[in-house]
Amino acid sequence: MTAPAPLAPHSVIGILGGGQLAKMLVQAAAELGFRAAIYSDDWGPALDVSASHLIGPYENLARLDEFARAVDVVTYEFENVPVIAAEHLARRVPVRPGPQALRVAQDRSIEKAFISDLGIPVAPFVVIRDASDLAAASKAMSDWQSSGILKTARLGYDGKGQAGVAAPGDLAAAFASLGSVPSVLERRIDFAFEISVLTVRALDGSIACYDAPRNTHQGGILRRSLVPSGIAAGIEAQACEIAGRIATALEYVGVLGVEMFYLGPDAATPLLINEIAPRVHNSGHWTMDACAVSQFENHIRAIAGWPIASTARHSDAEMRNLIGHDADDWAALAGDRDVCLHLYGKREARHGRKMGHVTRLTPRSI
Amino acid sequence: MTAPAPLAPHSVIGILGGGQLAKMLVQAAAELGFRAAIYSDDWGPALDVSASHLIGPYENLARLDEFARAVDVVTYEFENVPVIAAEHLARRVPVRPGPQALRVAQDRSIEKAFISDLGIPVAPFVVIRDASDLAAASKAMSDWQSSGILKTARLGYDGKGQAGVAAPGDLAAAFASLGSVPSVLERRIDFAFEISVLTVRALDGSIACYDAPRNTHQGGILRRSLVPSGIAAGIEAQACEIAGRIATALEYVGVLGVEMFYLGPDAATPLLINEIAPRVHNSGHWTMDACAVSQFENHIRAIAGWPIASTARHSDAEMRNLIGHDADDWAALAGDRDVCLHLYGKREARHGRKMGHVTRLTPRSI
Repeated sequence: MTAPAPLAPHSVIGILGGGQLAKMLVQAAAELGFRAAIYSDDWGPALDVSASHLIGPYENLARLDEFARAVDVVTYEFENVPVIAAEHLARRVPVRPGPQALRVAQDRSIEKAFISDLGIPVAPFVVIRDASDLAAASKAMSDWQSSGILKTARLGYDGKGQAGVAAPGDLAAAFASLGSVPSVLERRIDFAFEISVLTVRALDGSIACYDAPRNTHQGGILRRSLVPSGIAAGIEAQACEIAGRIATALEYVGVLGVEMFYLGPDAATPLLINEIAPRVHNSGHWTMDACAVSQFENHIRAIAGWPIASTARHSDAEMRNLIGHDADDWAALAGDRDVCLHLYGKREARHGRKMGHVTRLTPRSI
Repeated sequence: MTAPAPLAPHSVIGILGGGQLAKMLVQAAAELGFRAAIYSDDWGPALDVSASHLIGPYENLARLDEFARAVDVVTYEFENVPVIAAEHLARRVPVRPGPQALRVAQDRSIEKAFISDLGIPVAPFVVIRDASDLAAASKAMSDWQSSGILKTARLGYDGKGQAGVAAPGDLAAAFASLGSVPSVLERRIDFAFEISVLTVRALDGSIACYDAPRNTHQGGILRRSLVPSGIAAGIEAQACEIAGRIATALEYVGVLGVEMFYLGPDAATPLLINEIAPRVHNSGHWTMDACAVSQFENHIRAIAGWPIASTARHSDAEMRNLIGHDADDWAALAGDRDVCLHLYGKREARHGRKMGHVTRLTPRSI
């Protein structure tokens, strides 16, 4: 089977979601001569830069039909797009990445099983569907001889929907604190740091990775990404290979973010998968400034059926998120000649809200 | 006098013109969290990426009033904005660069006198207002002992409004061929190549330059810009100093393009000013890919009253324009992994129309 023809410039890229990731996708699409149409359930900064938009609930199938008629391909900026919406659209217009990626990424228990089944290491885990699974989970935790983290199977992000579990006896209370919803208990991993692989897979199955950044979180929210990460080239190559294997198994098209725990150079298994994000990823924002072609452009290229462009990095980079009132310092940030400043244009700074980011470039070291 | 306060993110940048330069300005403004509003007399690709737009003749003062009420600052993408429109707007909202820059740049005879009066060398020239000036011009041309180029004083661009004059006896016919409108006869300069200085001047008077590219034209249209240009550092510094002097004399705010003839390392006067463009410049498009901060962002910063950010270049670059049907090769261009592809999203390729550009990056040599 040959891949469908690439979309010609002037085609319309449909994006579900109107936040900053959508905005950056729109900007990249426009650079390639595409027009962008947004479907969102609320106002967002992407609306100010796109050629057209529709506002409606993601479950409004008639409104989605209207959207499908106006676009040539659909992609999305967030993994919690209702699968029913993606499937509905996919019967009318190509949806890339496909609904399968959403189905897997939306449920931690499915995601971890999917990755495990590929023979790719993940942190030891046990699924807790309801209270009847708590005893077995406590038993598993005793076997690990380690504390754990309980995470809701669905709808967690930026540290939300998580609870630390110090000892098996604390598990029931943690489960209740998260609302007694289906969850995954993971063994807490003693890792050196987190890296993430931004991998992009084209319609023809070809794959490329950006250099994997080293990520630092605070309160569950990404604060900083640094390239180069400092891991050995051989392990970085392994990280890219693993991410590519996941993308291929998902028949993925576009940029896939794969978060990994790096356990250190002496670990028997240096890399464990933390989670995947079926979209462009916050830890890849430095690619806008430190690479000839950003993750956003390569995502647009892939979903348009275009070849992937270079993922090479011309500079070292440190990306810092501007969260909540961090962005109130815009005047000082604007005066720092050596950072690339990105403000998302959100109307109101709220606690924990990502308002922008800055990237500091330095000459390429390795 | 202190400079006015910088515009806060979310302010509205008003742009006169809706073409590719406006589009790239809009994209840069959006990266900084500004919104963009376009005023144009026709559809253009900038409309697809801006938050709002008004379509109307540039001389419609009531419509301009409506525009002025919707924006916090006005800039423009082309030098032939009617001065009356710029002056009308400037009574309501800051117009940057100011109408004075338009007045000078719109008329070659004023422009050349202005630059000469600053003690900055230009090609020898003589103004021909009407046929009664032809005799004196022929005499000047005889003194030069060189062929010349006749250029209309107003509305010339991309090689339009120009005629070569091989000998004094051909001057009258050349003048008639351009419509017998006020013109400037320039001595033809035997230059090594053309460079252009992209200089940016902030509201507080501070100035920075990008590395000056070496430009190649064909049929009067820019085809290629190359950095580094190959000229000696001392002459490049002189080029920047000259451009800055012009910007300061114009009380300029924003990016000013200054085209110069480079006469070679052994010339007594190595640099002569060709012309100035009171706007971002085609020969600076490589800054989008080879610099941390592009000419477009620095223009927006300047007109918003922000400090200028770095103009440093991280890579060598070769920019090629895609003109007319060049852009029909988009599929092949998209497959060249090593170029940054920019397509403007114009609806129709026409002969001589700038449809996009590509930038090839290589590691920084000097």
